[in-house]
Amino acid sequence: MGLCVYLHMQKPSLPSGTRDFGPEVYQKRKSIMNVMERIFKLHGFVGIETPALENLATLQGKYGDEGDQLLFKVLNSGEYLSKVSPEDIQIIKYNELTPQIASRGLRYDLTVPLARFVVMNRSTLTFPFKRFQMQPVWRADRPQKGRYREFWQCDIDIVGANHLLSEAELVEMYIEVFQELDLGINVKINHRKVLDSFLPLAGNESAWNSFMQAIDKFDKIGQEGVANELEQRGLSHMISTWNEWCILADAGSFEAIIAGLKGIEAIQNEHLQEGIEALMKLWQLLSSFPQAKLDLRLARGLSYYTGCVFEVVPNDVRLPKDFRIGSIGGGGRYDNLTGIFGLKDVSGVGVSFGLDRIYDTLEACETTANEKAEHGELICSTRANGEVRAFEIARELRKNGIEVEVYPGSVKLKKQLDYGNATKKRFALILGETELSNGTVSVKDLKDGSQHEASQDSLLAFLQDA
Amino acid sequence: MGLCVYLHMQKPSLPSGTRDFGPEVYQKRKSIMNVMERIFKLHGFVGIETPALENLATLQGKYGDEGDQLLFKVLNSGEYLSKVSPEDIQIIKYNELTPQIASRGLRYDLTVPLARFVVMNRSTLTFPFKRFQMQPVWRADRPQKGRYREFWQCDIDIVGANHLLSEAELVEMYIEVFQELDLGINVKINHRKVLDSFLPLAGNESAWNSFMQAIDKFDKIGQEGVANELEQRGLSHMISTWNEWCILADAGSFEAIIAGLKGIEAIQNEHLQEGIEALMKLWQLLSSFPQAKLDLRLARGLSYYTGCVFEVVPNDVRLPKDFRIGSIGGGGRYDNLTGIFGLKDVSGVGVSFGLDRIYDTLEACETTANEKAEHGELICSTRANGEVRAFEIARELRKNGIEVEVYPGSVKLKKQLDYGNATKKRFALILGETELSNGTVSVKDLKDGSQHEASQDSLLAFLQDA
Repeated sequence: MGLCVYLHMQKPSLPSGTRDFGPEVYQKRKSIMNVMERIFKLHGFVGIETPALENLATLQGKYGDEGDQLLFKVLNSGEYLSKVSPEDIQIIKYNELTPQIASRGLRYDLTVPLARFVVMNRSTLTFPFKRFQMQPVWRADRPQKGRYREFWQCDIDIVGANHLLSEAELVEMYIEVFQELDLGINVKINHRKVLDSFLPLAGNESAWNSFMQAIDKFDKIGQEGVANELEQRGLSHMISTWNEWCILADAGSFEAIIAGLKGIEAIQNEHLQEGIEALMKLWQLLSSFPQAKLDLRLARGLSYYTGCVFEVVPNDVRLPKDFRIGSIGGGGRYDNLTGIFGLKDVSGVGVSFGLDRIYDTLEACETTANEKAEHGELICSTRANGEVRAFEIARELRKNGIEVEVYPGSVKLKKQLDYGNATKKRFALILGETELSNGTVSVKDLKDGSQHEASQDSLLAFLQDA
Repeated sequence: MGLCVYLHMQKPSLPSGTRDFGPEVYQKRKSIMNVMERIFKLHGFVGIETPALENLATLQGKYGDEGDQLLFKVLNSGEYLSKVSPEDIQIIKYNELTPQIASRGLRYDLTVPLARFVVMNRSTLTFPFKRFQMQPVWRADRPQKGRYREFWQCDIDIVGANHLLSEAELVEMYIEVFQELDLGINVKINHRKVLDSFLPLAGNESAWNSFMQAIDKFDKIGQEGVANELEQRGLSHMISTWNEWCILADAGSFEAIIAGLKGIEAIQNEHLQEGIEALMKLWQLLSSFPQAKLDLRLARGLSYYTGCVFEVVPNDVRLPKDFRIGSIGGGGRYDNLTGIFGLKDVSGVGVSFGLDRIYDTLEACETTANEKAEHGELICSTRANGEVRAFEIARELRKNGIEVEVYPGSVKLKKQLDYGNATKKRFALILGETELSNGTVSVKDLKDGSQHEASQDSLLAFLQDA
């Protein structure tokens, strides 16, 4: 509330890369988040929220050079140029001016704010700290289909514990959430140590990093594409092992793949051993979940993962064949979440749910699991002297949990019924002259048009059974 | 997830005027919003969300000069200086530079975004459009106790209807929400037409506006303070009527005040008649709610209100005597919501819930209505070979809606129990060597320390009854 009269007429628009969520979309997104929050809480996770505005000192230098470019920066308020000397302004470039006129930015993800939160509250938090957080983030990316400048992340992290039970729990939570959302998915799982086994073959860390960047593109360019990349990156000596790797990755069962790993000569080393041990331990806990799939080619580019990595991909028979969306969730174990803020040796593991893509995927499935076709009732009083009674009936029904509106105003019945149809009400409860004098209500089914008279006493029971 | 290794150590901090919400506060705020959303939906309201980023063209000029100063402006991304000519930069002042380097800002309230949303979606919306919206807003105000730069608004508006049933419904919703939150409140109600009755006495519109600004300060400076203001504003001829007004305002019942209004000679005019009629009609619908109080001195400064105005003030016996917080909600009817964006004659009425102040008020009452002292169970496996079974038990319990965690790792029992106490679990379900071989679980009550052995089959029933 705070609107001054303004005489210019302007055609309003939204900044590119942002969206309004109208009533239907709002409700569906909310249902998805309610499912998540329920499962998170069943597993003992607790929620936090952090501000959209963070100091740029907190955000910058955390997401690489590209990430820094994508931060939305907020102009300092007031006379923000007053501290810039006139000589400076004259010759200044935007990247020199920015730090002088903008000290805050918009949250870029939920991980850096988590790290900041843990460091600032470490004396009062109980570890392992199992937190969930569902909030929007902002990135000044070029908008395109499915990529927004303002979008939501839903993250769960277990901070300060280093045991595979945590990984198993997160995978289980992925499976439970998507089961309840009625969406078929697979959780692809790999372990960084298994990929570390390529380190000796690569020769040195920088070559291995280059290898990782190449295989990270597998989803887009395929096996041969990665092989070409390796050639271009001067890693042609890794191609034959890469090809062996791919054959094994498609070998089927977990057991078959693990057995096969022991047969690839070039990578027999301690890293592989460690990786295999961890995966076998994890699979013990996940044996009842066919959705958990070992995927040897899963790299998850970002270099800070140190153990298991995860990615969720939709795998639902109802999806159109040409539906492409990539992953709808991902995460992994990291060993040094809070080091950037001076708190060392805090290990953690976390995964993210990509709300926007999950929503798009559910829409593509045309799943209606969380939606009722019609809901709530509309009370139509056609006489001004019926309004008090309309309010009384509405009050009584709401006390019993029934959604009900009173049409605002005793206008023509047709107009009121049109509103009831447009807002998908179940029944119109009509109070006209006859009903008012009889003390009854006419109940009109807005779907089939049938109508009957009910006493005020029988109304509640009728609606509850309907 | 997106953290690069960074070698600088920095002590992290929050921008002033912003806050983290830790687990306990998050949960309490969420409970409050859940209550609101439940009541909103019972009344047939639908939710929308709008982006935090709006075009400055949408925001500027809507909140007065002061409001424009308080808008957070976001720097254009990339080389934002490239379109500013070097000559311009040289001589430029911040208020001339800003439009050239910032085209977007952060949402300042939920009303202008609603107006924009209604105009952009008018062809698909059903009117009356009853929407709720609960989102943060940003204002570059000087932070102080209880005033934040990032805070939440929870708004409900009925757009495109002009009937007092809507006003009555909103007052009823205020009452229902605070009843469910277990907080004693009054809803102060006035009607602009009643205040318009001072127009002839004031002499002209600008004098009347000045009068309104003076009485808007009543809560802070009292009756005499307002009288002094009137003197200073050259309105000393209004003081005696103002004093009559104040005596009447405290006259008690609705009926007594309405009767008294007819006795103040200086304001007998059409405006007063219209106002009285509206209030009497409204009171018919609100007769069962003692919380609804006519308050003749309620002005709600902003000039765009044209009918009823509302304000919610806490009135709870548990509040400390020195507790001062002002209003925790307010609103009113406006006649021209969307005119600023070119859509005329859309009347609406809306009210806002001040989430932050409501939270603070509930805290001051030390109400625990929405909080359980302890919740959920902790499964403690002290043997690595018990972990699979621990997971199975957890899965079974969660299927039945019981919150349960498995401690991540078979560490010493004491450490696990400490965690259970710190996170306020009800029971520790212990799987040690004996329990594993017997197929039982030791159930330890973390409140009184008592312990008993349960078969796996009897465990669920025990926890459900406990």
